[in-house]
Amino acid sequence: MTGADPLWLNARMRNDGRKNHQLREIKLTPHVSEYAEGSCLVEFGKTRVLCTASYEAKPPSWLSGTGKGWVTAEYGMLPRSTHTRMKRDKTASGGRTQEISRLIGRSLRAGVDLRALGEKQITVDCDVINADGGTRTAAITGGFVALALACEKLMAVSEVRSNPLTSYVAAVSVGLHGADLLLDLNYEEDSSIGTDMNVVMTNENKFIEIQGTAEDKPFSHEQLNALMFLAQSGTQELFKHQSAIVGHLIKSQI
Amino acid sequence: MTGADPLWLNARMRNDGRKNHQLREIKLTPHVSEYAEGSCLVEFGKTRVLCTASYEAKPPSWLSGTGKGWVTAEYGMLPRSTHTRMKRDKTASGGRTQEISRLIGRSLRAGVDLRALGEKQITVDCDVINADGGTRTAAITGGFVALALACEKLMAVSEVRSNPLTSYVAAVSVGLHGADLLLDLNYEEDSSIGTDMNVVMTNENKFIEIQGTAEDKPFSHEQLNALMFLAQSGTQELFKHQSAIVGHLIKSQI
Amino acid sequence: MTGADPLWLNARMRNDGRKNHQLREIKLTPHVSEYAEGSCLVEFGKTRVLCTASYEAKPPSWLSGTGKGWVTAEYGMLPRSTHTRMKRDKTASGGRTQEISRLIGRSLRAGVDLRALGEKQITVDCDVINADGGTRTAAITGGFVALALACEKLMAVSEVRSNPLTSYVAAVSVGLHGADLLLDLNYEEDSSIGTDMNVVMTNENKFIEIQGTAEDKPFSHEQLNALMFLAQSGTQELFKHQSAIVGHLIKSQI
Amino acid sequence: MTGADPLWLNARMRNDGRKNHQLREIKLTPHVSEYAEGSCLVEFGKTRVLCTASYEAKPPSWLSGTGKGWVTAEYGMLPRSTHTRMKRDKTASGGRTQEISRLIGRSLRAGVDLRALGEKQITVDCDVINADGGTRTAAITGGFVALALACEKLMAVSEVRSNPLTSYVAAVSVGLHGADLLLDLNYEEDSSIGTDMNVVMTNENKFIEIQGTAEDKPFSHEQLNALMFLAQSGTQELFKHQSAIVGHLIKSQI
Amino acid sequence: MTGADPLWLNARMRNDGRKNHQLREIKLTPHVSEYAEGSCLVEFGKTRVLCTASYEAKPPSWLSGTGKGWVTAEYGMLPRSTHTRMKRDKTASGGRTQEISRLIGRSLRAGVDLRALGEKQITVDCDVINADGGTRTAAITGGFVALALACEKLMAVSEVRSNPLTSYVAAVSVGLHGADLLLDLNYEEDSSIGTDMNVVMTNENKFIEIQGTAEDKPFSHEQLNALMFLAQSGTQELFKHQSAIVGHLIKSQI
Amino acid sequence: MTGADPLWLNARMRNDGRKNHQLREIKLTPHVSEYAEGSCLVEFGKTRVLCTASYEAKPPSWLSGTGKGWVTAEYGMLPRSTHTRMKRDKTASGGRTQEISRLIGRSLRAGVDLRALGEKQITVDCDVINADGGTRTAAITGGFVALALACEKLMAVSEVRSNPLTSYVAAVSVGLHGADLLLDLNYEEDSSIGTDMNVVMTNENKFIEIQGTAEDKPFSHEQLNALMFLAQSGTQELFKHQSAIVGHLIKSQI
Repeated sequence: MTGADPLWLNARMRNDGRKNHQLREIKLTPHVSEYAEGSCLVEFGKTRVLCTASYEAKPPSWLSGTGKGWVTAEYGMLPRSTHTRMKRDKTASGGRTQEISRLIGRSLRAGVDLRALGEKQITVDCDVINADGGTRTAAITGGFVALALACEKLMAVSEVRSNPLTSYVAAVSVGLHGADLLLDLNYEEDSSIGTDMNVVMTNENKFIEIQGTAEDKPFSHEQLNALMFLAQSGTQELFKHQSAIVGHLIKSQI
Repeated sequence: MTGADPLWLNARMRNDGRKNHQLREIKLTPHVSEYAEGSCLVEFGKTRVLCTASYEAKPPSWLSGTGKGWVTAEYGMLPRSTHTRMKRDKTASGGRTQEISRLIGRSLRAGVDLRALGEKQITVDCDVINADGGTRTAAITGGFVALALACEKLMAVSEVRSNPLTSYVAAVSVGLHGADLLLDLNYEEDSSIGTDMNVVMTNENKFIEIQGTAEDKPFSHEQLNALMFLAQSGTQELFKHQSAIVGHLIKSQI
Repeated sequence: MTGADPLWLNARMRNDGRKNHQLREIKLTPHVSEYAEGSCLVEFGKTRVLCTASYEAKPPSWLSGTGKGWVTAEYGMLPRSTHTRMKRDKTASGGRTQEISRLIGRSLRAGVDLRALGEKQITVDCDVINADGGTRTAAITGGFVALALACEKLMAVSEVRSNPLTSYVAAVSVGLHGADLLLDLNYEEDSSIGTDMNVVMTNENKFIEIQGTAEDKPFSHEQLNALMFLAQSGTQELFKHQSAIVGHLIKSQI
Repeated sequence: MTGADPLWLNARMRNDGRKNHQLREIKLTPHVSEYAEGSCLVEFGKTRVLCTASYEAKPPSWLSGTGKGWVTAEYGMLPRSTHTRMKRDKTASGGRTQEISRLIGRSLRAGVDLRALGEKQITVDCDVINADGGTRTAAITGGFVALALACEKLMAVSEVRSNPLTSYVAAVSVGLHGADLLLDLNYEEDSSIGTDMNVVMTNENKFIEIQGTAEDKPFSHEQLNALMFLAQSGTQELFKHQSAIVGHLIKSQI
Repeated sequence: MTGADPLWLNARMRNDGRKNHQLREIKLTPHVSEYAEGSCLVEFGKTRVLCTASYEAKPPSWLSGTGKGWVTAEYGMLPRSTHTRMKRDKTASGGRTQEISRLIGRSLRAGVDLRALGEKQITVDCDVINADGGTRTAAITGGFVALALACEKLMAVSEVRSNPLTSYVAAVSVGLHGADLLLDLNYEEDSSIGTDMNVVMTNENKFIEIQGTAEDKPFSHEQLNALMFLAQSGTQELFKHQSAIVGHLIKSQI
Repeated sequence: MTGADPLWLNARMRNDGRKNHQLREIKLTPHVSEYAEGSCLVEFGKTRVLCTASYEAKPPSWLSGTGKGWVTAEYGMLPRSTHTRMKRDKTASGGRTQEISRLIGRSLRAGVDLRALGEKQITVDCDVINADGGTRTAAITGGFVALALACEKLMAVSEVRSNPLTSYVAAVSVGLHGADLLLDLNYEEDSSIGTDMNVVMTNENKFIEIQGTAEDKPFSHEQLNALMFLAQSGTQELFKHQSAIVGHLIKSQI
């Protein structure tokens, strides 16, 4: 985010030295997987997620004959991606994991023209190597890059005829800590904060998904507005990182 | 909702004859279960959900010794609550159902002082008898009444010493259909609409939870704001229905 | 049951004020479901079961090509249908539930000509809203009404050509409490009694199913005979209740 | 069965050359297991079931402190105990298997004084080696012998102080084939017959359990009576076989 | 094994009176199952395994059209085949059981020409009646006999055209107890010993499978060699037992 | 491996340009995980496995009170670690995965004095990032480094008092391709080869585990011996790689 900080962002330091409106260090490393059609290792600070996009030449059966394809996602965690080891059978099942998987899938589809994809399916696996808060927002942001790279490869071999990518998709968390508005929460913040929201956006500054929960104290409409502006500034920064890798594949200028 | 309709609400009729800003017929019938400590049959038009609140004299083990209690919820569907019969093993498991159960539980806890409840647990079961859209918002709205009635009963027998109820909790869906903003979507609307959001609020006009998804076209910040105002008007009306039954148990005036 | 009480029925009052040979208050409410092809809420005193009949235009695969259809049933319980809340994952699985489901299915098939039904399937869901003993006998009695109403509807739209209903089917429990013979046991009786039997009959006074268990003390052939007479008198009364709703669909006169 | 055949038993030969009222060849071989406290291989013609009784020094938790013990049973099938191989995961689970397990357990408990057994548990496993109809009746009949032998062993080492065995328990199937009444159905008969019943009895000619189902045509009270007499004659014969092995352990004379 | 004992086999007695290089008493009883195409009860001392071979006229789908058939195996245990009763749901599932099933299947396939078998499948079930160590080696040894007898039967009815059996397959365990080398370990030896190996061989003295584990102290190359010679002597003896039953079906002379 | 190639190793090139007796490029990268007590990314050519060692202050319950600790392992695969995507529910369950997990655990325990570890538990997770053959041998080799680093850390904070590491543990695969003996098979070799063996060794040139399978043609004792010599040469090279990282923690000189 460039320019002067809005009034509603104070300058107090956070537990990792960031300002309230500052993203963690963002890194997107493409082509990290040997076999996947597209892949990207995404890092939001110490949060690291390996995203791979896998291609199937036919869509799910319920789309067969419609001329449309599908993009789906699966989210998992390595057992020691967390502070204390998770039991392995908790890492890829249960309601929370399925909920995140569906969120990622829905979000990625918002950046794709499924008709241009044709009757194919792309599955984006997002496996958390290290979890320090914001794994789902990192997964969406990195998963989009893996997806775009897979589209590029499939176009190169003419498996997909016309470019199905329509806009960038990225996500970030925002939160309320007392009166403070925080961008891109890390694990410690996420655990101690009152309200946190995950916001998925397109590069047109439009919303794909908003999921906000007040753990402790309900929040006001004014606070909601401020959080949305903060999310917009955060995702705009993320689009720049994505653009550096897959900018040639998407018409919109970042 | 009182006063003149805001500009952003037009008067076009919907598939069930309602205006855009109009709730379906709301009915809350208390004391419908033989055994439950509190119960309420909630109807949002043709959507009918049976809510029962069950009491346990001890809290989940992780709260033992903290002086705090817990409120949790479980959501299920009868196999033929839907247009075509669901397989029974899909009615109470799977990520969607668990996600809704957690949403209801979080929402209800926002209206309760868990410390006043003491080391107890109340489980609110929300079983869908008939599903015509909005089952989760109806479940939260009716589940709150079942919960409040259970609290009343537990106070009457001194199982709970001081009133744990702090504010009303209700929920409603809002959606975008092209340029139109719709309140309390029924099944047909929910299936055909672009963006829909579930909004959980307290009677202080504050937000507990916002879950919004753009199935088709991302939505703008302006649209988000308009949707939030509409949700506020809808929940205020729901609080009146709740107040008629459990108004004597909650300090706030509706 | 009309006429003088047989000798083997004494006049001692039961815990709910009934005579030994007396059914609980029976209520059959048809058309309670929005979507199901046929439905009936059945009440045996405080036991309430919601029965819905769902239609599929093709039979199970093993009947394909035989010209015959199928009627099957599934039994479930709401978590707080019982005195203390059941865990939800116990409500629709496990051997006891499957056993009851099969019993209901077999019983209902005894009143249907599967060849007249043709290559179709009807699934009768019986969901216990409130359990006070006799849920399976209530389910059979109410499930038959739901099934008959579904047949009526399917005949009206010519999905089914000729009337597949051949006779009434109803069920009742009988039990031995010391020397006393009791009809239609409620939960408290069922829990404290020595021998209890579930008896499924047709209106020709014939037996479809007898399931009797001596929990404590084996019973004699004489006692078995007396129990069977009592079951006959009980089901004859149930057929009258069924006849009031679906009498026009079944040839036999009650 | 001795004496002249009753009128209702005709002399027509069955598919295996038996008369209608004749049991298959019955064999009870005790002490067939290396480790089990009691064991018996039971054969009803070609139906062979291996029964083992296993002892645990403490009862199920819900009996702890009551002074009473428990007898339970589990029923399983070897995959190729049947004409065509069953999938292994079907051999010990599913409603049918659990239902039979509970039936065997209930039946065996009817022959035991659980207070004399004391706070112990005996589990009787009944594994079908070869299935030619009547596996559950064979399992009850042979399981009782395994149970009695285990009691003998436990009394010998003073784990159990006083004899918990109170009466013999055996079971047999009876059926209706048109007007014919058949005893101890084999697989082919069981598959083709209209009504079949499993009857569990004590040597006092009393009933522990009756499970009868009319697959095709409901049966009359007169037919029920005739079937019960036939079951009594069949179990009396089975008691003689049991008595030859465990007669010294049970007071009643056969 | 004939001839003088090699130097590395001492004459110390084992817990069951055997010499170190001595097999337990071996018994192979063919034709023990009523329905299976081939069957054999195998006994290695007190270890008893019932092996049945079941035929299907078509192969697994992945072999369809290849002209080749398949031999597979499943291993299970009866609950009281062990010293203390196993829970039934542990007897046929879990990694250990699947691992043994695959080992048996792979081993048996080594004695069969799958092309000569043609597009068919034979499933060999190995159910442990009594477990005293070496259940998997007994299962392979007895399973081969069941398989060979099934082949004989299928050739007799021309379901299989040319003899698919190519060599004998048998298995034995060997172990290291301090400096001692032991053949065919029983349960007590298996539990207390350092290194044990399961060795599957053909009658040409070749290895199909070696699975060796040092529980306690790693073993040397010299020890490995000595164990392999011992396994060869053991399996040669087992081939003689197999040959007595199915020698006419296999070209190799034993 | 140093010195002249033995006679039994020819110089023919393999599909990836290696000589028959040559390992793939080996890389061990320590400290790759944020939270784990010890970690190592191991690479055998294109096979990459992330190994993390997690500490618990108490042992499994069955070791409680014995003064001994435990080392266990769990093996998993990322869905797109393979050429074509695996379904996620196949990646960490099923017999094969459990079998490999147990193999890794047993192998690692051979390098540890469980009494010196004390009543603690270390769990080594081995997650396959990229699978090109030899994942289990890489997992053992890298898992040992993660384990050793965890021991170092635990000694540094005095959670573990005396060094529990007793010797190096590494593993390699060897195989027979016709007459050729191959070291460290990659995926393509593993799929096409006749016999392959996984061999786990200590740096004293002793065997911890041998698992060898002849998929096609049984192998001779001479071939077994040659394969074992080749495995020894391979593991000696792996010990050097391990020694560069954890050499200061283990007494033996490499």
